[in-house]
Amino acid sequence: MSKRFAGPEIERLIQLLAKVPGLGPRSARRAALHLIKKKEQLLGPLTVAMGDALDKVRICSTCGNVDTTDPCTICTDPRRDDTTIIVVEDVSDLWALERTGAMNARYHVLGGTLSPLDGVGPDDLNIRSLVDRVAKGGVSELILAVNATVEGQTTAHYITDQLDGLGVKVTRLAHGVPVGGELDYLDEGTLSAALKARTAF
Amino acid sequence: MSKRFAGPEIERLIQLLAKVPGLGPRSARRAALHLIKKKEQLLGPLTVAMGDALDKVRICSTCGNVDTTDPCTICTDPRRDDTTIIVVEDVSDLWALERTGAMNARYHVLGGTLSPLDGVGPDDLNIRSLVDRVAKGGVSELILAVNATVEGQTTAHYITDQLDGLGVKVTRLAHGVPVGGELDYLDEGTLSAALKARTAF
Repeated sequence: MSKRFAGPEIERLIQLLAKVPGLGPRSARRAALHLIKKKEQLLGPLTVAMGDALDKVRICSTCGNVDTTDPCTICTDPRRDDTTIIVVEDVSDLWALERTGAMNARYHVLGGTLSPLDGVGPDDLNIRSLVDRVAKGGVSELILAVNATVEGQTTAHYITDQLDGLGVKVTRLAHGVPVGGELDYLDEGTLSAALKARTAF
Repeated sequence: MSKRFAGPEIERLIQLLAKVPGLGPRSARRAALHLIKKKEQLLGPLTVAMGDALDKVRICSTCGNVDTTDPCTICTDPRRDDTTIIVVEDVSDLWALERTGAMNARYHVLGGTLSPLDGVGPDDLNIRSLVDRVAKGGVSELILAVNATVEGQTTAHYITDQLDGLGVKVTRLAHGVPVGGELDYLDEGTLSAALKARTAF
């Protein structure tokens, strides 16, 4: 804004909102105005919720998840299967898997993938703590739910190597046709994988 | 979220973020996670900025703009031209016009448009205060910068009627081809208007 036409507080709010993923400079202005107009219904409660998150959210020292307790809700849930750990790159992947409701296991959040070019080595990820968890015993299966990218697969291989001799079964997510997906739009790699892993109808 | 896998504070933050225009349920989760990860750099400052806005933002009793002072920054700016008032539907329109830097006038925010079907009558808009401002004298031109919609134009006509006899010149924004726009994609109404209002080259 070249010319000042509103108090600095409003400009600062817009600037900060523009840094939220999903909002750009234009939508940040719209969001700021909407928040200001809905002071009681939205701006107030959201400010409180953000203050709460600021005070209470921490990283789980066991699995690397974010939560308001440490250990987190998942690590302390007595109904979860202790024998299975799902390894994910990021908390967002954990959330995505939890939304499926398909598993009732424990998790381990790596915090990224190995990427020598970006200077991310094994010590920058929560790999040591994962090996320690497995070494303690009681874990029979480790599901590597990393992204199907080069970095994800490299990280998966590295982790598998580290677990050598601990007697844990290491599995990975199946490759195949996305549910609802059209073959025509899929890449050759996915189609080949889906063909190779074909199942009885 | 059918199954609890994070503290209620995080779920509440996601729920509220999903109500911000521009964010949906999916992007709200991404935004929440980003905010949590960038506690010091983003979540903290944004919480403060929102608290500031909550405390300080008010509606200008003169023009209907939102600002941290009343009268607002524009109404109190001594360098603005007192003789021209730009009438807009919403504060977002005021911001849009200010970003152009094309005018250095005062504003009046109606807070909507006349819409009998939605039960919005003249008393629900800041029309009375606009007529009062003009009646006080000193205003020579009123620019009706309302949207080119049926409701916007209806509102413009109503306001013009109310100002009858006050000796103020009422103008409206020009219709025409948007700068950078392609004729092929324009509707017939806009093209006809642009032809009628053609200017010497």
